[in-house]
Amino acid sequence: MSRIVQKYGGTSVGDVERIKKVAERVKHTVDQGHQVVVVVSARAGVTNELIARAKAISTQPSEREMDMLLAVGEQETIALTAMALHSIGLPAVSYTGGQAGIMTDTFHTKAKITTINAAPIVTDLEQGKVVIVAGFQGINEQGQITTLGRGGSDLTAIALAAAVKADKCEIYTDVDGVYTADPRVVKDAKKLQEISYDEMLELASSGSKVMQSRSVEFASKYGVVFEVRSSFNYNPGTIVKEEVAYMEKVVVRGVAVDKDQAKVIVSNILDKPGSAAKVFRALAAANIIVDMIVQNVGRNGIANLTFTVPQGDTHKAQKALEGVLDEVGGGQVAIHEHIAKLSVVGVGMKTHSGVAADLFAALADAGVNIQLISTSEIKISVVIEQDKADEAARVAHKAFALENL
Amino acid sequence: MSRIVQKYGGTSVGDVERIKKVAERVKHTVDQGHQVVVVVSARAGVTNELIARAKAISTQPSEREMDMLLAVGEQETIALTAMALHSIGLPAVSYTGGQAGIMTDTFHTKAKITTINAAPIVTDLEQGKVVIVAGFQGINEQGQITTLGRGGSDLTAIALAAAVKADKCEIYTDVDGVYTADPRVVKDAKKLQEISYDEMLELASSGSKVMQSRSVEFASKYGVVFEVRSSFNYNPGTIVKEEVAYMEKVVVRGVAVDKDQAKVIVSNILDKPGSAAKVFRALAAANIIVDMIVQNVGRNGIANLTFTVPQGDTHKAQKALEGVLDEVGGGQVAIHEHIAKLSVVGVGMKTHSGVAADLFAALADAGVNIQLISTSEIKISVVIEQDKADEAARVAHKAFALENL
Repeated sequence: MSRIVQKYGGTSVGDVERIKKVAERVKHTVDQGHQVVVVVSARAGVTNELIARAKAISTQPSEREMDMLLAVGEQETIALTAMALHSIGLPAVSYTGGQAGIMTDTFHTKAKITTINAAPIVTDLEQGKVVIVAGFQGINEQGQITTLGRGGSDLTAIALAAAVKADKCEIYTDVDGVYTADPRVVKDAKKLQEISYDEMLELASSGSKVMQSRSVEFASKYGVVFEVRSSFNYNPGTIVKEEVAYMEKVVVRGVAVDKDQAKVIVSNILDKPGSAAKVFRALAAANIIVDMIVQNVGRNGIANLTFTVPQGDTHKAQKALEGVLDEVGGGQVAIHEHIAKLSVVGVGMKTHSGVAADLFAALADAGVNIQLISTSEIKISVVIEQDKADEAARVAHKAFALENL
Repeated sequence: MSRIVQKYGGTSVGDVERIKKVAERVKHTVDQGHQVVVVVSARAGVTNELIARAKAISTQPSEREMDMLLAVGEQETIALTAMALHSIGLPAVSYTGGQAGIMTDTFHTKAKITTINAAPIVTDLEQGKVVIVAGFQGINEQGQITTLGRGGSDLTAIALAAAVKADKCEIYTDVDGVYTADPRVVKDAKKLQEISYDEMLELASSGSKVMQSRSVEFASKYGVVFEVRSSFNYNPGTIVKEEVAYMEKVVVRGVAVDKDQAKVIVSNILDKPGSAAKVFRALAAANIIVDMIVQNVGRNGIANLTFTVPQGDTHKAQKALEGVLDEVGGGQVAIHEHIAKLSVVGVGMKTHSGVAADLFAALADAGVNIQLISTSEIKISVVIEQDKADEAARVAHKAFALENL
């Protein structure tokens, strides 16, 4: 007998019929002799409806009240899921985040989980009950409802898996698992059977948005093995776990494309200590996440800084930079939105040289010009023209023979 | 400065625009220097939508999960109401029933309030905040969410008014107050300025469904003065309070008609001690509320029992009675659904004789046949043919000159 945490996202519990299907799947797991904790999100669309109502009332709704409001989405789903389990004869009990003992800090709308008192849940499990927990939410020490921000339900599931010492955590979503590339773009993309936390993290940060990085980081920190799989079929998904030796035999495990980045060039600034720091401090103060930084030093002590930011933040970035240009010796800001970031990821890169050369050669053969390069131990990313991104993904996929994985 | 509890029902907070209107009304009250606690219901229709989803999943949903589900309706409204108050510059904080310290017993879907720890609310009020509380809900000692059943939000408001020692409780609804008769039936019906708890109770139990009896009983027990008024205008409503001497000068204060009753006749049963007890014990066991009981003893020790039950319960009543007929000497059950109960109510009746005679004479003049009669100290009810109920209400209203109140 294992203890399993299953997380079902918004489309998996989108309506009454889907909730009944989730109940069947839970029963299927229980019938195999397992103890099951179910974490559910709000029904698809509900959170957006609630946000729309809040925005119709206030352009800047209080974050405490936003949390009070949004928490109802998951509370509805846990009750309906419990009813669905009862109606097929399974003992089940639902808990809000607070009732499940999920304590957080006080940062409304983006709270961090501080502790989980899982003892009552474990007691329920040992009494043969399925425990259903509202994802995305907790309470702080003052008893106020908090929410965990984007990807919060995944985080609830993984944190609960750690807290109840689950043998496995299953993240049910509307995709079959993690692929070597986006199957809509690369026809012969393969589903990966296993992937390491680090690879999953690099894929997440490279635009392959199966899961938010923070949940993967949490799982890595606490050693929670989880499987990303579809609630629409019974196919095995992709298991995400600690890197093991045989993983390194495969050099590259995935190609990811992110079309939601923009390239920012700050040119003609003084190449003196502190210039770059001032620029990036201004961007950080505006809460903008910067990626792929390159600095070129030209003649006469004049430097150019190039980096990427999320496309939605270009306006904010422009403003933040304008406020700091004078301090770094004038200069100009240029923003290019028509780019894409292509990344190849794999723990095997650590021990294999030549991956970068292979990638660049393949792209060059296909006539794809590289505008920026950045590398980590297990990832190589390049910025290219957006129109060529899909073709580049296919070329890279083929160059590393990912269709044979 | 007074402390006021205001309760807004489902139509009063039916959508974003209505919620903004509620916020304006609260601001109006605060601007007059009052401390305000706001109790809100779920938006009109939301509770029914949730029930429909539950019923689509399970014919007999668990009551604990029903409470978990239904509580989200009010939780949405409190958050939106707080946002609306913030957006017009009022400090405000929302609380679920549990957060507001409303403790109940463990009877899910029809819990009773046991205690309210109002100290935190009082602190908020004294700090100048408007406190918004979710109606209809509380928590039990195990921290499980409970709901208070029909009319639960009114009860929350009145109980909170008692707990925070409010000077007044205002129940906002979609009617202007309590009328001498239903204005849709009796054109010259008058809005009553004041009415006693007892009269309000008798009107409630006579089909004038402005409020559920339990809330009025609670108010009476704790001496909470409340006003029933409309959230759609600023007209004064009807104040409900302890009976005072001058109220008795008016003999009759209202005419109520209840068309949702059915008449049940159990005929040819043995007239021996215990027969009636057996009949009514069977009905009580089936959870059927019986009203207006009359027993006729005929010849040869054979008796007939006549009484009224809610029309929705006739099926249950028939079944319950069939199970007991043998024990009371056979007999037959006949059910007449085409009846109405007409009641005249007023504390003045206690000291005035002849009210019954005046009513019966007026009805006779109008050709309305009386099938059953029952009286209390401050009410006379008669069962009449349903088709004549509206005409009977007009006749009775005129007989006691209620248009001149």
